[in-house]
Amino acid sequence: MELFKGGVTAPQGFLASGVHADIKGKGGTKKDVAVLFSKVPCAAAGVYTTNKVQAAPVVLTRARTDRGELQAVVINSGNANACTGEQGLKDAALMAEWTAKALGLEPEAVGVASTGVIGVTLPMDRMKAGIAKAAVAVSPEGGQDAAEAIMTTDLVDKQCAVSLDLGGATVTLGAMAKGSGMIHPNMATMLAFVTTDAAVEPTALAVALKEATARSFNMITVDGDTSTNDMLVVLANGMAKNPPVVLGSALYDKFAAALEAVLIHLAKEVARDGEGATKLLEMRVKGAPTVDDARKAAKAVCGSALVKAALFGEDANWGRVLCALGYSGAGFDPAKVDLWLGDLLMMKAGAPVAFSEEAAAVILKEKTVVFTADLHSGTAEATAWGCDLTYDYVKINGSYRT
Amino acid sequence: MELFKGGVTAPQGFLASGVHADIKGKGGTKKDVAVLFSKVPCAAAGVYTTNKVQAAPVVLTRARTDRGELQAVVINSGNANACTGEQGLKDAALMAEWTAKALGLEPEAVGVASTGVIGVTLPMDRMKAGIAKAAVAVSPEGGQDAAEAIMTTDLVDKQCAVSLDLGGATVTLGAMAKGSGMIHPNMATMLAFVTTDAAVEPTALAVALKEATARSFNMITVDGDTSTNDMLVVLANGMAKNPPVVLGSALYDKFAAALEAVLIHLAKEVARDGEGATKLLEMRVKGAPTVDDARKAAKAVCGSALVKAALFGEDANWGRVLCALGYSGAGFDPAKVDLWLGDLLMMKAGAPVAFSEEAAAVILKEKTVVFTADLHSGTAEATAWGCDLTYDYVKINGSYRT
Repeated sequence: MELFKGGVTAPQGFLASGVHADIKGKGGTKKDVAVLFSKVPCAAAGVYTTNKVQAAPVVLTRARTDRGELQAVVINSGNANACTGEQGLKDAALMAEWTAKALGLEPEAVGVASTGVIGVTLPMDRMKAGIAKAAVAVSPEGGQDAAEAIMTTDLVDKQCAVSLDLGGATVTLGAMAKGSGMIHPNMATMLAFVTTDAAVEPTALAVALKEATARSFNMITVDGDTSTNDMLVVLANGMAKNPPVVLGSALYDKFAAALEAVLIHLAKEVARDGEGATKLLEMRVKGAPTVDDARKAAKAVCGSALVKAALFGEDANWGRVLCALGYSGAGFDPAKVDLWLGDLLMMKAGAPVAFSEEAAAVILKEKTVVFTADLHSGTAEATAWGCDLTYDYVKINGSYRT
Repeated sequence: MELFKGGVTAPQGFLASGVHADIKGKGGTKKDVAVLFSKVPCAAAGVYTTNKVQAAPVVLTRARTDRGELQAVVINSGNANACTGEQGLKDAALMAEWTAKALGLEPEAVGVASTGVIGVTLPMDRMKAGIAKAAVAVSPEGGQDAAEAIMTTDLVDKQCAVSLDLGGATVTLGAMAKGSGMIHPNMATMLAFVTTDAAVEPTALAVALKEATARSFNMITVDGDTSTNDMLVVLANGMAKNPPVVLGSALYDKFAAALEAVLIHLAKEVARDGEGATKLLEMRVKGAPTVDDARKAAKAVCGSALVKAALFGEDANWGRVLCALGYSGAGFDPAKVDLWLGDLLMMKAGAPVAFSEEAAAVILKEKTVVFTADLHSGTAEATAWGCDLTYDYVKINGSYRT
């Protein structure tokens, strides 16, 4: 199962577009409204931010994926429509209505997602024009435009696709995501959309999504801030005509594995492109008493400001890794821990080991740096991803709004 | 009750010193070994890091304050003696032994504290010479030297003192602290030492310390990293000859209030002098269902990388404050929240309010910036303190070890 270059229009029957609607009101040409549309109704599932403050589009779209069906999604960047009160809910509903009308759908068949500044109501005049433009522009080649339209401070668009055989039919999954800041587990503090022409029963889709999210987007962190707008939506339109994927079947396992591969790829890309980031940090924890312990431990290291700053400085400060494991809440005995930087052993049974500073320097210069901790307290394992903390993170976030 | 300039040697009977022992092995003249000594045995209490990885001095000193008695403390900066295994425990015990011998005490009467780089064993030859030098140098004027010797990346030393009447006797409390990085609640990720000539029964001292810590050092955060070495120790030598302070008495309340005032002052100074910080952030939460909710909410805002970066950029990005309240885990209804920047209302009942950008800019230029949130969900309140996230934080922590 090889991932290939492609996005949300890689599977059969999906059209998309991305246009410039000047949502920020600052001119320019950046695409900021995207429409994603399936020729036929889709089974749909979503996972959403656990922040108590939920943006209007999250409230609206969650209610719609809870019913297990969608046929289109409209997405804007430049304004999160969060902390916008009653007006925000009305505006999100209008976005769905306008999109539905232009595509000949019922409003309930349209999901809505937004990302950008918090606490400012949407410019609904420009939004209306933008949606009209985007809805007529949807095409089977529009995945790239859509992926660009959902970006905020992302430096690169994030897309991937994969094809596999499901019961004799070739099915394809395509996906796009945006990340950058406010990236922290629960859930992944970003927007992501996965399309597939596989036929998947809605409950199976929801379970597969939840499990794959736990091992992908919920294992990344950029800055520890859980956004008000996180959303990950999967649409399955069944046009590949495979025997429907149901829970507990061999086809389910195959489909779930493909979905997980897609989500892990995107999640790593989001971490690597974290605001200001120059490196991807991968923290592998093994020998944990439970998967929950392993996840907590791995995420704490990726979330540590001190580990992240040391990574930026290419400083083999492994004591900070152990310190973060220590406050993670994971159950283990510090006196048993072994720790590696790449394949270089730095700590054995909780005590320092002499290592080559030169070898460490070579490993730390790489674009991806892997730490591995064996807690020797069980058999569970988990991997988390993060990025370094850089001057540019501070610069970007010191003046985001103004 | 006015705080005045003064430190650990302000109360009667306390002597201190701070000397250069070259613990880092890089030469220079920075003082890095301090000794704090009382002419008579003291009631003692301590609170310590909750990190599962506990530095050797934490293990040693906790056991000794658990017995409620100490007469001296030896402290070094430049090396944390953390993640140093069995060797670290032996070295911490030796530090106490050498100090005790020089001061004519039993080793069990001496506490040990260390701060600095993790994962490197102590240079015991230089430590031995340093302790010898520091032990003979203790004097009633040595508080300033001790306060300087415990600093790491701190830019300023942190000391204060207060006098009050306790049952007809004038008693004094004096204190010093170091903070800077790895500053995050549970407990306060720093070293602090409070001395007093008040007579305080050990249990009363322990309870007063725990309660005051909850409202001071456990309400600050610099970077979310809980250190392996946090320690806050109080010594009460009784030389003021006040009627002993016991739990549940009026004298207890008065002493506890003085202790809390001292700790809040130091905690705010630690937050203000966080690594790279240019501003103190004060987050006041009221109208919370419980004190625990109020504390969680206030701390989440002070810990948010995005709020901290916006503060550095002097950007009135109040949406990030609400976002952090939302993921804090505190119970409240986002649709009821009012939020102020200084005295400027920014949000009413969960929705944005038009405000003067000029007025906001003036408030954000101050060295102390206060946000107040009324959750309108109860009557509990709490205040937390933090600092901004700056280029210098990244710079300092990108190259701390090397």
